[in-house]
Amino acid sequence: MFFEGSEKKAEVVVDNTKLSLLNDISNTFWQELVECCNAQILSSIENEHCKAFLLSESSLFVWDDRFLILTCGVTQLVNSIEYFIQNTQPEDILHVTYQRKNEYFSNAQLTSFGDDIKLLSKYLTGKAYRFGEIYSHHNYVFHQDNEFQAEPDDTTYELLAYQISEYASKKLTTKGLSTQEIRDFFCINELLPGFEIDDFVFDPYGYSLNAIKGTDYYTIHVTPQAGSSYVSFESNLDLFTIASKILDILSPSSFDLLGFNDPQFSKKVTTTIKSPYISNSLVSKTLDNGYLVCFASFITPETQYSTPLALDLTGENHAL
Amino acid sequence: MFFEGSEKKAEVVVDNTKLSLLNDISNTFWQELVECCNAQILSSIENEHCKAFLLSESSLFVWDDRFLILTCGVTQLVNSIEYFIQNTQPEDILHVTYQRKNEYFSNAQLTSFGDDIKLLSKYLTGKAYRFGEIYSHHNYVFHQDNEFQAEPDDTTYELLAYQISEYASKKLTTKGLSTQEIRDFFCINELLPGFEIDDFVFDPYGYSLNAIKGTDYYTIHVTPQAGSSYVSFESNLDLFTIASKILDILSPSSFDLLGFNDPQFSKKVTTTIKSPYISNSLVSKTLDNGYLVCFASFITPETQYSTPLALDLTGENHAL
Repeated sequence: MFFEGSEKKAEVVVDNTKLSLLNDISNTFWQELVECCNAQILSSIENEHCKAFLLSESSLFVWDDRFLILTCGVTQLVNSIEYFIQNTQPEDILHVTYQRKNEYFSNAQLTSFGDDIKLLSKYLTGKAYRFGEIYSHHNYVFHQDNEFQAEPDDTTYELLAYQISEYASKKLTTKGLSTQEIRDFFCINELLPGFEIDDFVFDPYGYSLNAIKGTDYYTIHVTPQAGSSYVSFESNLDLFTIASKILDILSPSSFDLLGFNDPQFSKKVTTTIKSPYISNSLVSKTLDNGYLVCFASFITPETQYSTPLALDLTGENHAL
Repeated sequence: MFFEGSEKKAEVVVDNTKLSLLNDISNTFWQELVECCNAQILSSIENEHCKAFLLSESSLFVWDDRFLILTCGVTQLVNSIEYFIQNTQPEDILHVTYQRKNEYFSNAQLTSFGDDIKLLSKYLTGKAYRFGEIYSHHNYVFHQDNEFQAEPDDTTYELLAYQISEYASKKLTTKGLSTQEIRDFFCINELLPGFEIDDFVFDPYGYSLNAIKGTDYYTIHVTPQAGSSYVSFESNLDLFTIASKILDILSPSSFDLLGFNDPQFSKKVTTTIKSPYISNSLVSKTLDNGYLVCFASFITPETQYSTPLALDLTGENHAL
């Protein structure tokens, strides 16, 4: 069964002296916001700094001065952002960024990135970029173009793994797998200890995890099925410290690393990413909002001929 | 200005003892067939073996026992094939193959490959495959599954070049370029001498060429604009003999080679394709219709960080 794991992502920063996202906004509002993109809240955890909602399609994290939302499948995340803008005083919103990764089947999506930023441009003046080549892995980034400047220590990382090994795919599509078994598979306790965790195994497979500790967070989303497998890690922790181990576990045939505001990104790529991976795309820019965005995409060279994927003829592009 | 250069392609083989495509079918029929996918015939050349039509979106070649059609942009080539099937006695059609390459903007397409083969499956029993990874260069191939077996000497090649060098892109988007200047740029007379040629420069740029000599043919289609540049060569001549020279001329950042019925394909890849190109996809299979299909995709490793592509906000994903 095909599923588009690749996420859209948005971050909205507010002036929390005027609007406290933790104190002034009810869970009902977040539920409505999430429903605008056809997702549902499944569960949540919270601490004094953060509320983390696990969604039917990915995650929503709310801090007092910002929220971060990632949604996958054919959700229209931009509609949730429009809902927030329409229900908030314009002067309370300091900054909006909107990001969209390459999809496996972009023709199955209800809108393109172009459509999305056209909608956002009705409300905001912004700038947009494509990091990476159009016919390969890439990330679209839109940001509001105003006086907002990112704090230098506002760092975030993404590790996006495509086509994981047959072993990992088989393991993660095993029927009846428990959350604990998946945590163990990813060596969660060893790699990222001490977090409060909220996770969920979808039926028949698929896995999402939210984790918080103080102001730190990470989130993992797993689309394990062969043919469209995809695993994403996103965190404000430095994912370079665990990248080698994650690549060992998943052996993806290709992956992307993204860094926001890490001036050591390029150096870390060189020291962390080893053979057989080869970079086919390296892109970086300090955006006008102050974020240094770095994108690096990696592939494995092919030396042996394999057989093509047989497709069924129902029009769904499913593997047979 | 964005244009989807990537082509759909179909080949239909008929029993020419019952239906001679050269003698029994009028040019008006071909015109109607081409119009079914929203293309137009611009001009044509012919010899005793072949009629070659240059289209507003690519090419149509008609031999006595088969026709080959390639169309780019957002044409719905499958509708032309449906038109042929609906207007031909079923017993006259020996074999149908339908192919679709990865597109730059698949979300701008009116149908997916899945939709297309669903339509064809109303008329034909077939099999379908994807050569290459979904998130990278790939080729979808559908073929009718019947008693038809390809002749071993029915060989065809494709060379598909993506993101040509800035120099080549600038040269090929020069205003007022003549067909002769483009032929010279590609060293046509040196590389492929002795062909009758029909070519056309589109406004403001873009170039198509059909060439025939006896039963041999080649066709070139050029979408030169930076951001979505694409150049395709297709021929029944061995394109490996000119691949190095074409790669020198275009310096694409990535390219694909396809071979139909060349058992030496893998060996030729090894001896012909040199540094800096690295293969990230090698796929081959002898289909049940007897065609050995080989697909090899190549990228250039990246060692330096570049800046992202700035996009405009009109929803068209145009480069600024």
